[in-house]
Amino acid sequence: MESVRVTYRARVDANEVEARADALLLEQSVELPRAAVTDPFVEREILGEVEEIAAEAPGSFRITIAFPVATTALDPAQLLNVLFGNSSLQEEIELADVEFPPSVFEAFGGPRYGVAGLREAAGVHGRPLTCTALKPMGLSAKALAKLCETFARAGIDVIKDDHGLADHPFCRFEERVAACQMAVERAADATGRLALYVPSVTGTAETVATQLRFAEGRGVRAVMVSPMLIGLPVLWQLVHGKTELPILAHPAFGGALRIAPETLFGKIFRLFGADAVIYPSFGGRFAYGEERCRRLAHVLRRPWGPLRPALPVPAGGMTVERVPELVDFYGSDTMLLIGGSLYEAGEALLERSRAFVDSVRAAGGTQT
Amino acid sequence: MESVRVTYRARVDANEVEARADALLLEQSVELPRAAVTDPFVEREILGEVEEIAAEAPGSFRITIAFPVATTALDPAQLLNVLFGNSSLQEEIELADVEFPPSVFEAFGGPRYGVAGLREAAGVHGRPLTCTALKPMGLSAKALAKLCETFARAGIDVIKDDHGLADHPFCRFEERVAACQMAVERAADATGRLALYVPSVTGTAETVATQLRFAEGRGVRAVMVSPMLIGLPVLWQLVHGKTELPILAHPAFGGALRIAPETLFGKIFRLFGADAVIYPSFGGRFAYGEERCRRLAHVLRRPWGPLRPALPVPAGGMTVERVPELVDFYGSDTMLLIGGSLYEAGEALLERSRAFVDSVRAAGGTQT
Repeated sequence: MESVRVTYRARVDANEVEARADALLLEQSVELPRAAVTDPFVEREILGEVEEIAAEAPGSFRITIAFPVATTALDPAQLLNVLFGNSSLQEEIELADVEFPPSVFEAFGGPRYGVAGLREAAGVHGRPLTCTALKPMGLSAKALAKLCETFARAGIDVIKDDHGLADHPFCRFEERVAACQMAVERAADATGRLALYVPSVTGTAETVATQLRFAEGRGVRAVMVSPMLIGLPVLWQLVHGKTELPILAHPAFGGALRIAPETLFGKIFRLFGADAVIYPSFGGRFAYGEERCRRLAHVLRRPWGPLRPALPVPAGGMTVERVPELVDFYGSDTMLLIGGSLYEAGEALLERSRAFVDSVRAAGGTQT
Repeated sequence: MESVRVTYRARVDANEVEARADALLLEQSVELPRAAVTDPFVEREILGEVEEIAAEAPGSFRITIAFPVATTALDPAQLLNVLFGNSSLQEEIELADVEFPPSVFEAFGGPRYGVAGLREAAGVHGRPLTCTALKPMGLSAKALAKLCETFARAGIDVIKDDHGLADHPFCRFEERVAACQMAVERAADATGRLALYVPSVTGTAETVATQLRFAEGRGVRAVMVSPMLIGLPVLWQLVHGKTELPILAHPAFGGALRIAPETLFGKIFRLFGADAVIYPSFGGRFAYGEERCRRLAHVLRRPWGPLRPALPVPAGGMTVERVPELVDFYGSDTMLLIGGSLYEAGEALLERSRAFVDSVRAAGGTQT
């Protein structure tokens, strides 16, 4: 029987850990006391079993449970529910890790483009990709398009909306997307290279679908979503029939979950089809350390079942000065997202953006 | 200018708290260093301001920020993003509380039925409602329908699917819903009272819409969703044009968020349109204490702008024996959800369920 193997971290006393592991198994499957589970099919095919309990530190254990894959119905919302539905409400429990069987890989599919597809779309090989964000919220579509053109002229590969740019009255989605896509096309006339403009699509599943159709109609070649804001199953739905475009995933609203970032952003985002995943890098405004950032990049790119590798996009307060260090750390199959450090240049935005581009080209980066 | 007032709890040193508050404001609005914010419209209409910093305990502060309502675009995903998008990635920050201005109440609307509408649908007045769950996952549609009929014959008001019942190969959604709705109708022929059977709809936004249409066609009169699994904006979309049915909200996958439960389940679920909200009660399998449970019930039911009160549904390991205590604690405008404590009766399920019903009728409960 195929199983989804889920590892939880539990803060619990050693003399309680076995009972706690059994309670976790029941909570995440039948949600009944064991004595009330009398149906033989349920016992055999649904309950699953505790596979391992490993002490990690005093009062901290890793509990690995194998849930029969049938419990997930191979549905994106129900999969999340089996992984961490009710147990998310228990403060002593963290979702640490998960491994999926072939049928889950097959049903969910992972990235359709991934590292290679995004390199193809951006026309970039043998070095990391460069990326920046259009902001701040509050600027007009015209002002954002002007920034977009500057970045494109400087040679930045991927220019994305800040994830806070929604369909605001002072900057309508359609006006912004039309203007920014035209801006990268204008710049391409001058530079000979067409930057990827990546709008952020957000709202209800219906709004997202409407925005996607508009963007596609304007020639946009990739989009960004924040799966934790719109709902992870909505990301899956986009990948399965709603759009042919590559998808960048933004971590907004996802950091607060008591789920290891490697598992949520590294595994679940990739499984659900994100081609690239933005996450906070070390040394910026967020508290992720080097080890976590290295693991995240590894989990996104490494061979994993039949899934394509996804492109890691470290971000969040990185500076142009740190490019050599970052390229050395992350390697070539990476997209470096630098925003604020360019904007701080004020009038010298074009030059500062060129310095970013030159610096990445100079650093090169080894193939990872 | 109308504002959304958001209170964060920050674990930070006293000499850093002012800078941290300013950084929070920037992170949640423009996502730029303050020096890079030069546009006068942005400064005036987007940035917002830190309204209050209050020491709570050594190293713990409550920071209240007023964000101009325009930043939210009155969109459900963008509202969540302004409340807790990027700052969710900062482990020292918790979303503690939020207050909305009239335009948000008007745009989001809150419950369409709430306490009064659910009482009307269930035909119950002057006492708490009784509720139980169909489980475990793994039973056939026929077996679940048999349980459903037993509960309905016992006089339970609301019989809901366990939130783990999806569209499984061993128990298809459509087969289950048809059978369970027929079961409550059969029981009504005998008892003269039609129990509310409440299926759990789950999956992508499209699956949810398809399941809803099927349920409506079979005469189902209320449904349940897990907003954190399907995506909060999907809940809002259901309420705004997708269904006329009252909606019960389940907290699965939401407990892990570093958001105060009173804010997420009490305020945000209510604002987005949940008519009833299930949450873990004290003294059961979850760690919520009495004070939190009391506040949750209060936040759901109290007058709040023009919004209808929502029905609190305490759950999670409560027992029939505790009914008098629970009715006394929660008052009349409550729905008591007891599952496992009925199932443990085994062959005596009907009698145990009747004891639950009788106990709630006897306890009555004061109007709250």
